[in-house]
Amino acid sequence: MCRWLAYTGSPILLERALYSPAHSLIDQSLHSELGAEPTNGDGFGVGWYDDQPAPGVFRSVEPAWNDQNLRELAGHISSGHFFAHIRAAIGSAVQQTNCHPFRHGRWLFMHNGYLAELAQVKRDLVLAVDESLYPEIKGQADTELLFYLALTFGLEDDPPEAVARAIGLVEAVGEKHGVKYPFQGTVATTDGERMWAFRYSSEGKSRSLFFTGNVATLRKLYPEQEVLFEVSEDARLIVSEPIGNLPGAWNEVPESSWGVVGRGDDQLGTFKPKPPSKAVPVTA
Amino acid sequence: MCRWLAYTGSPILLERALYSPAHSLIDQSLHSELGAEPTNGDGFGVGWYDDQPAPGVFRSVEPAWNDQNLRELAGHISSGHFFAHIRAAIGSAVQQTNCHPFRHGRWLFMHNGYLAELAQVKRDLVLAVDESLYPEIKGQADTELLFYLALTFGLEDDPPEAVARAIGLVEAVGEKHGVKYPFQGTVATTDGERMWAFRYSSEGKSRSLFFTGNVATLRKLYPEQEVLFEVSEDARLIVSEPIGNLPGAWNEVPESSWGVVGRGDDQLGTFKPKPPSKAVPVTA
Amino acid sequence: MCRWLAYTGSPILLERALYSPAHSLIDQSLHSELGAEPTNGDGFGVGWYDDQPAPGVFRSVEPAWNDQNLRELAGHISSGHFFAHIRAAIGSAVQQTNCHPFRHGRWLFMHNGYLAELAQVKRDLVLAVDESLYPEIKGQADTELLFYLALTFGLEDDPPEAVARAIGLVEAVGEKHGVKYPFQGTVATTDGERMWAFRYSSEGKSRSLFFTGNVATLRKLYPEQEVLFEVSEDARLIVSEPIGNLPGAWNEVPESSWGVVGRGDDQLGTFKPKPPSKAVPVTA
Amino acid sequence: MCRWLAYTGSPILLERALYSPAHSLIDQSLHSELGAEPTNGDGFGVGWYDDQPAPGVFRSVEPAWNDQNLRELAGHISSGHFFAHIRAAIGSAVQQTNCHPFRHGRWLFMHNGYLAELAQVKRDLVLAVDESLYPEIKGQADTELLFYLALTFGLEDDPPEAVARAIGLVEAVGEKHGVKYPFQGTVATTDGERMWAFRYSSEGKSRSLFFTGNVATLRKLYPEQEVLFEVSEDARLIVSEPIGNLPGAWNEVPESSWGVVGRGDDQLGTFKPKPPSKAVPVTA
Repeated sequence: MCRWLAYTGSPILLERALYSPAHSLIDQSLHSELGAEPTNGDGFGVGWYDDQPAPGVFRSVEPAWNDQNLRELAGHISSGHFFAHIRAAIGSAVQQTNCHPFRHGRWLFMHNGYLAELAQVKRDLVLAVDESLYPEIKGQADTELLFYLALTFGLEDDPPEAVARAIGLVEAVGEKHGVKYPFQGTVATTDGERMWAFRYSSEGKSRSLFFTGNVATLRKLYPEQEVLFEVSEDARLIVSEPIGNLPGAWNEVPESSWGVVGRGDDQLGTFKPKPPSKAVPVTA
Repeated sequence: MCRWLAYTGSPILLERALYSPAHSLIDQSLHSELGAEPTNGDGFGVGWYDDQPAPGVFRSVEPAWNDQNLRELAGHISSGHFFAHIRAAIGSAVQQTNCHPFRHGRWLFMHNGYLAELAQVKRDLVLAVDESLYPEIKGQADTELLFYLALTFGLEDDPPEAVARAIGLVEAVGEKHGVKYPFQGTVATTDGERMWAFRYSSEGKSRSLFFTGNVATLRKLYPEQEVLFEVSEDARLIVSEPIGNLPGAWNEVPESSWGVVGRGDDQLGTFKPKPPSKAVPVTA
Repeated sequence: MCRWLAYTGSPILLERALYSPAHSLIDQSLHSELGAEPTNGDGFGVGWYDDQPAPGVFRSVEPAWNDQNLRELAGHISSGHFFAHIRAAIGSAVQQTNCHPFRHGRWLFMHNGYLAELAQVKRDLVLAVDESLYPEIKGQADTELLFYLALTFGLEDDPPEAVARAIGLVEAVGEKHGVKYPFQGTVATTDGERMWAFRYSSEGKSRSLFFTGNVATLRKLYPEQEVLFEVSEDARLIVSEPIGNLPGAWNEVPESSWGVVGRGDDQLGTFKPKPPSKAVPVTA
Repeated sequence: MCRWLAYTGSPILLERALYSPAHSLIDQSLHSELGAEPTNGDGFGVGWYDDQPAPGVFRSVEPAWNDQNLRELAGHISSGHFFAHIRAAIGSAVQQTNCHPFRHGRWLFMHNGYLAELAQVKRDLVLAVDESLYPEIKGQADTELLFYLALTFGLEDDPPEAVARAIGLVEAVGEKHGVKYPFQGTVATTDGERMWAFRYSSEGKSRSLFFTGNVATLRKLYPEQEVLFEVSEDARLIVSEPIGNLPGAWNEVPESSWGVVGRGDDQLGTFKPKPPSKAVPVTA
């Protein structure tokens, strides 16, 4: 329902990742090929890290393809660690507070997919958010709620564990309300150092997720691609849909998996939601 | 913090009430004299009744003074019963879902004022909203929450009782959280037939509220005012701040009062919040 | 590059024409089948006639498919004569002043297509606009300029003649600047009584244009279509792309044609641009 | 009718100049004291230089005081040379293409004031814009037109001469059309190295203009002001209305003057418009 991109590596202008490649993310805002919908025109957001204490976030309700400010900023902001997201709304209002990425302290979070039957499960899930975090929820997007659940379950300490517990709760609450497949999607989160990505759906037919392979190998394959020589050897892109036109450049993340890239070693593991240990206090 | 206007009477073009008078509501968006702030530029909304099942609502995040669409609509939509509101945001985002009036079925609701220390009291108040109504909450404005509390307490059956219980709960929850003066403001609500207005604050220093007197009397006072002869004899305006330049035209609603106008007899009564009968389940 | 719809007949809620049919105009904002692009998400506009001296116009830069205000207005405004337009911008900014329909007095004007190589021809064309009309130009869209050329050439007296002269000038100026095919598109204009539509392109491969046939015949074909029984027998829709799912309901306007519907007899004629009688004072 | 700020010196976060001082520019968007209006809520813009070939420009139609994106960007973008402008529209539409600063190549341009009776003089002035520059005009603001006139008259080679000729033409055309006082305002322009500011009005009662004095002196006066020690000794602020609460910090630019700061020596001179050498070809 949305498309997203995450970059970590040596600093580059945002436009190198957002606009330059063939079938770029901005192009996908009009012509997505792997998404549920070809058009992702219900707003967008970018979040980037620099030497400030928290990442910057720029979000807008305009379609990314015609947002002049995004074009300006992408041509002037360089970052070695950033998220970008284009939205296709399903249900919740098109407003900045519903645009990804969401931020808490140094953390960013974004998602392509949905919490099914949100109206039915929302109240129970909101109740599970830590009370000290609750006032920070600014919008009504299912993803923001998922983020605050993950924060409640310790995202800042152990992201795979926290996301597993958050999605586990979503599934438990969904099941109690008779929702067949409560969760769908790919999720990315970062603290500015490392980036975690998750691919999972209750149905087992998750949205697509790809990451780039070794830069040194890519340089040999595509010696004419300037951008490959601009970025550091440890650079990585994670995307919901491949950009550029580089066969062999993209590795698909398997169904029900999570991975982490950035500073330190990359890892790829199996993702399995953790149901709540005690019965869910469903209120309805 | 905001300014509002409510009209009931024979159908008139919205612009007659919104733009034409000296010191009109639109003028107040730039130059309020009695408001907490002279500028009310954080969006606006109008809600109007016609022969459709539910009232229409047009809301925008632009300042009312320069919104070309509002000017167009006000010059083409006639109604015998409408609300208009200009917003000065305090805390919550400037987005359509936070703009007044709010709507549920045939009901509209708007407010000038605030729920003090919203971040502290919000969760407890949200928990008190009827579960079947909860999914309808679309924004994060304190007023929308107040509206859904009033609906929970029977607004559609007995507005003065429901608003008294809603504000009573706001005060009870606020007190538990150590909020000195939990509620401030004037409130208007309508079902398209009658209009209820409330003036109350925990502190006893409420925002101003006025209504027009008898049209027949006004016609004698101001025979040159065309609009007084366009509207029916039973027409009424209720405003947070007088519009026009007509000394003698406005009656101030007393502190801690409520009134009702529209079809049927007008009434004016004392307003007193009703605290919850049992202890408030404050969670923090 | 855009899609549009024009209705004349007995008054109906705008939503009956804009939202209700299968493959409605709003649906075409996301999924156009005959347009140059499937997505028409760069703003929209509606213009409608009522008993006010001039038509109302509501325009927005948001995609039509997610504009909550359009949905509200379409559900509350009834009109017996209206235009609606969804935009896919090519070059000029996404701003209200570039959204169709454009208005002058009681006239509305909208267009699907373009003036080719606008940057090259614009100055010469602007110089040809009557000086008294020039200050009214508010945006930078090629269509607004075409409208003011047509007004300069007497649109209010003889629309087919004025549009032929305006497009004739566009072609003459274009040719002087070496533009191969200066004009492309379908155009609609109205004074609130009659509606003129034009289909023409310098290349002879014009954008599509359709109008509905006889209502009485359609009622026999589709007795289950309620809307056909709501509207008057003389009702007509003109569209750039058929809406609804009613084979046999639509007549294609032939290449290089114009037609008029509304009060008085319908006409269909051949359209041929009229080149300026004297040499075009090309300045470059 | 607007307020603006220009900074040159060592790089600082934009927020240090836009948000931090008492009576900051953002505060002036709600509470200007010296402006023609207290509210400057009709959009804003910032333009900043970094190591890219052209300056970045971020413009929005929202009031600056509640624009979340401006707050984000100002907290993440550092620059040693930037412009900021808040707008109070008089006549022209509230849209990004009418927001200052305007850009051409490496040049930025902004203005507080107006070209009087724009509708009367616009066509003649547009005709005087160099034909190669004409297609770049994107909006309808009087200031954008003034900028393109100045560019036509050689702004990139000799800013004081070009601005004198541009305003001289505005006065000559205005006089022919019977406009009493054709020009009013303060203007700032820069190429990213030096900043020129102008204070002039046909009436001789120009909008206010101030610049900061010597940083070393200010540091002695205000040793507790951190920002004075963050910036370089050659840092300068030019503003339409003083920010901060530092008596003695601001020098008023005299009526009918121009000045230049930035790399190289500062200069201050008398400003006198240069009327066109030959008669103005007024067309009306």
